[in-house]
Amino acid sequence: MEDLFEKLIRYGESDFYPFHMPGHKRRDISSLPGGADRIDGKIEFPNPYSIDITEIDGFDNLHHAEGILKESMETAAKIYGADHTYYLVNGSSCGILAAVCGCTRRGEKILIARNCHKSAYHALILNQLEPVYLYPAYLERYGINGGIAAEDVKKALEAGKIAAVLVVSPTYEGIVSDIREIADAAHAHGVPLIVDEAHGAHFPFAVCGFPKSALECGADVVIQSLHKTLPSFTQTAVLHIRGDLADRTEIERYLGIFQSSSPSYLFMASIERCIRFMDGSGRTEMNRYRDRLLRFYENTKDLKFLDILNPAVCREHSVYDWDMSKIVISTGKICSAVQNSENGRRTFGGEWLSRVLREQYHLEMEMEAPEYVIAMTSLMDTEEGLHRLADALKKIDRELEEQTAGVGLNSGRGERESITSALPEPEMVMKISEALEKKAMKMPFSDSIGRISREFVYLYPPGIPVIAPGERIKKEIFDVIMWYRDMGMSVRGIADPALSSIITVADE
Amino acid sequence: MEDLFEKLIRYGESDFYPFHMPGHKRRDISSLPGGADRIDGKIEFPNPYSIDITEIDGFDNLHHAEGILKESMETAAKIYGADHTYYLVNGSSCGILAAVCGCTRRGEKILIARNCHKSAYHALILNQLEPVYLYPAYLERYGINGGIAAEDVKKALEAGKIAAVLVVSPTYEGIVSDIREIADAAHAHGVPLIVDEAHGAHFPFAVCGFPKSALECGADVVIQSLHKTLPSFTQTAVLHIRGDLADRTEIERYLGIFQSSSPSYLFMASIERCIRFMDGSGRTEMNRYRDRLLRFYENTKDLKFLDILNPAVCREHSVYDWDMSKIVISTGKICSAVQNSENGRRTFGGEWLSRVLREQYHLEMEMEAPEYVIAMTSLMDTEEGLHRLADALKKIDRELEEQTAGVGLNSGRGERESITSALPEPEMVMKISEALEKKAMKMPFSDSIGRISREFVYLYPPGIPVIAPGERIKKEIFDVIMWYRDMGMSVRGIADPALSSIITVADE
Repeated sequence: MEDLFEKLIRYGESDFYPFHMPGHKRRDISSLPGGADRIDGKIEFPNPYSIDITEIDGFDNLHHAEGILKESMETAAKIYGADHTYYLVNGSSCGILAAVCGCTRRGEKILIARNCHKSAYHALILNQLEPVYLYPAYLERYGINGGIAAEDVKKALEAGKIAAVLVVSPTYEGIVSDIREIADAAHAHGVPLIVDEAHGAHFPFAVCGFPKSALECGADVVIQSLHKTLPSFTQTAVLHIRGDLADRTEIERYLGIFQSSSPSYLFMASIERCIRFMDGSGRTEMNRYRDRLLRFYENTKDLKFLDILNPAVCREHSVYDWDMSKIVISTGKICSAVQNSENGRRTFGGEWLSRVLREQYHLEMEMEAPEYVIAMTSLMDTEEGLHRLADALKKIDRELEEQTAGVGLNSGRGERESITSALPEPEMVMKISEALEKKAMKMPFSDSIGRISREFVYLYPPGIPVIAPGERIKKEIFDVIMWYRDMGMSVRGIADPALSSIITVADE
Repeated sequence: MEDLFEKLIRYGESDFYPFHMPGHKRRDISSLPGGADRIDGKIEFPNPYSIDITEIDGFDNLHHAEGILKESMETAAKIYGADHTYYLVNGSSCGILAAVCGCTRRGEKILIARNCHKSAYHALILNQLEPVYLYPAYLERYGINGGIAAEDVKKALEAGKIAAVLVVSPTYEGIVSDIREIADAAHAHGVPLIVDEAHGAHFPFAVCGFPKSALECGADVVIQSLHKTLPSFTQTAVLHIRGDLADRTEIERYLGIFQSSSPSYLFMASIERCIRFMDGSGRTEMNRYRDRLLRFYENTKDLKFLDILNPAVCREHSVYDWDMSKIVISTGKICSAVQNSENGRRTFGGEWLSRVLREQYHLEMEMEAPEYVIAMTSLMDTEEGLHRLADALKKIDRELEEQTAGVGLNSGRGERESITSALPEPEMVMKISEALEKKAMKMPFSDSIGRISREFVYLYPPGIPVIAPGERIKKEIFDVIMWYRDMGMSVRGIADPALSSIITVADE
């Protein structure tokens, strides 16, 4: 039987290059050329067992911080410009649970972007909340979700009593909403704005070239995954609170519930080390990193078949801002080009590109969608790594040109398909928590059309539900999910992504 | 400002010996003399950044395990004799939350040992459960909680509709209840038994000398902290399910909620590594460890003032079984001896002993109670470490003899005090979740007598509530809490453990 520990070591020693999380890219901060002082992490991480302790004298208690951890989190808050910063050892997931549960009372209404991560939906279940959904714009050409319109937030706040607003910005694909406008709208109604900035932890440390952080734009509670885009261990994150609109006492109470009562000192040390590094020579590294990214985009600008998301496209689609650290590589043009060929989409979708990059180039992507892949980068990415990706993409592009010689191209998505990746807007028949309390009934997915789902169905990553418990399974939604399956995506929720798949429905 | 990372490194390099969690005792498994094959962990843990990855191809997904993690957990289940074993990256806390929420429906009644960890109480809040408490026996001489009587479980099950039973065994002090009898009682009513065996993860790997594990005794769901008594990173644990009484689907659903959606591969590797080691040469190491412990107890059996918990005392108090890995050192005899001296108790309580051991002997204890300390051991403890503790205790004992020359001793606790550490049985006016939904009102603790608490008040460790939200603050309870404070204990819940302390009460 394979041994996980050994397999991880072998993988770490292989030539596979990670265009995925965690943001440390398997490198210790101490390996960076940057500043040599201790704050900049020039001490190599020792054998982790040797420094993994518990709440002994002198090492404080995360859940009642009064000493070194309190000071450490206060210093972090100053760095971030937050009133309070909390270290999270159970990922952004627990931060989102605590923020949502802490800002709402049982059964209240929450205004929530539909493209939120499943942890946000979990909070809806735990606090029996009634969601009012904000649907993001849609970037047709790439098949990705756009931003949330502040106008929609205003309208929804005017329409009904809302306890809190929750949006995700940036998205997995780097789309940033106008947090300032959204915060103003929320504050005009005395409602706190929670921003899931899990994918934007690097924003506060960039001088230019990256979007502003949500905290700077007036959000009340901001959750950032340190491990996604910064050099910190997987499962580490921070939660920031600013101002008095969010109920800090309640958020702290819920953090005490959703985080282990034996929080890892390895994680806490990694968090502090990461923030101090970023506040030190990390800022300079962010500039170098920005330049490396710009060279990458310049280097790949002449691709004909592969289509890389860029600021011009974002402007065309009225995207408020975009985080170029997420390299989104679309295969939409190829799909169009080979639209008449047998099973064309399936052959040249995101799953295909991801596989080619992995198998032929040993480049591992973060995520594959039906028509694109995401290469996730961070300041720990090397010039060489980005070159490898650019070279691979250029080579693949040339090969595509040869393969599809004579076939016309268009710049949009394929016309053959009437299905898009735009989030469907299902009818909500009952609250998620209500559906989960209904009797479960399992049935073949194909028989479920018209029934009420008792499952979340989603692609993972990114974990955004296509359908949630309590929603009616319309034909259009069934079709989208089957299309995902046909595109080789990893569909979660229906028991088995094959024809015989089973879904659990709520008995009406 | 102090740097947590550097402070941890310095501490790791110091001569301080850890009689506390984690069970690896700051040593990599690979440092053990045991077997040399790879399963026994002879490969040293590399720089953790180098193997900290995410759910990429070939490395499975903890929340939908289908590959290497599924196999790993299935192998673990076989080793444990469980039907299903789950790796937990958010500690036993998340396992208890998931087990309780998964085995109950909102608002139902749960039969729960009052000496459960606060995570069990958190589950009561989340699922709005109504607790029916089982009060443990009390070992007067040591001031510690004893076991839960199967008879009490039977009575309570006969009295009312109960969704699940939850007990903690072993306790922090190593007291083991008769799980077989309790399981039989629960099963006779078709009710699942959940056992918080956080402190007994080593039981399954001992041939003799230690109690049987709860899983072997018929429990339906068992949660074990690997980091407490085995060589695994802090915050790692496992949850086992056996039989069909517990709702596995629901428990899995809640694990998906309470664990990060970015689970740490460092943790998962550490869990697998630990279990494989324990199943290999760990079993032999357990025998050696048992012998080291027996030598320690033999070596310290003639102490006159310090009083170490032992099997004879447990038998006297009808304790079902006891885990000798928890060295419980009572100062009760000294308190009696110096009962007439000024402020005697305070001078010679657990806080004092813990401080002397730390400051004069560089031995760090796991926990201090008013009248005892716990030295927590594991198979990673060395003969030398246990010798250091025995020598220190003997020296302290001799010094006490000199200091208290001529003062009489008795073998019980001091007569002066009418207060005991036995858990008070407060009146429950409303459910915990109801109290938390009431308006909060802060007031000086001394004014709160007769009011309904909206706080948990507890000593940490162990984190067992003396009073829970929704319970009336009786004079007796007030006195116990003030006594804890006087004994220098770390009282949590009331805002400040000083005379001016503030408690939040639920406005009736």
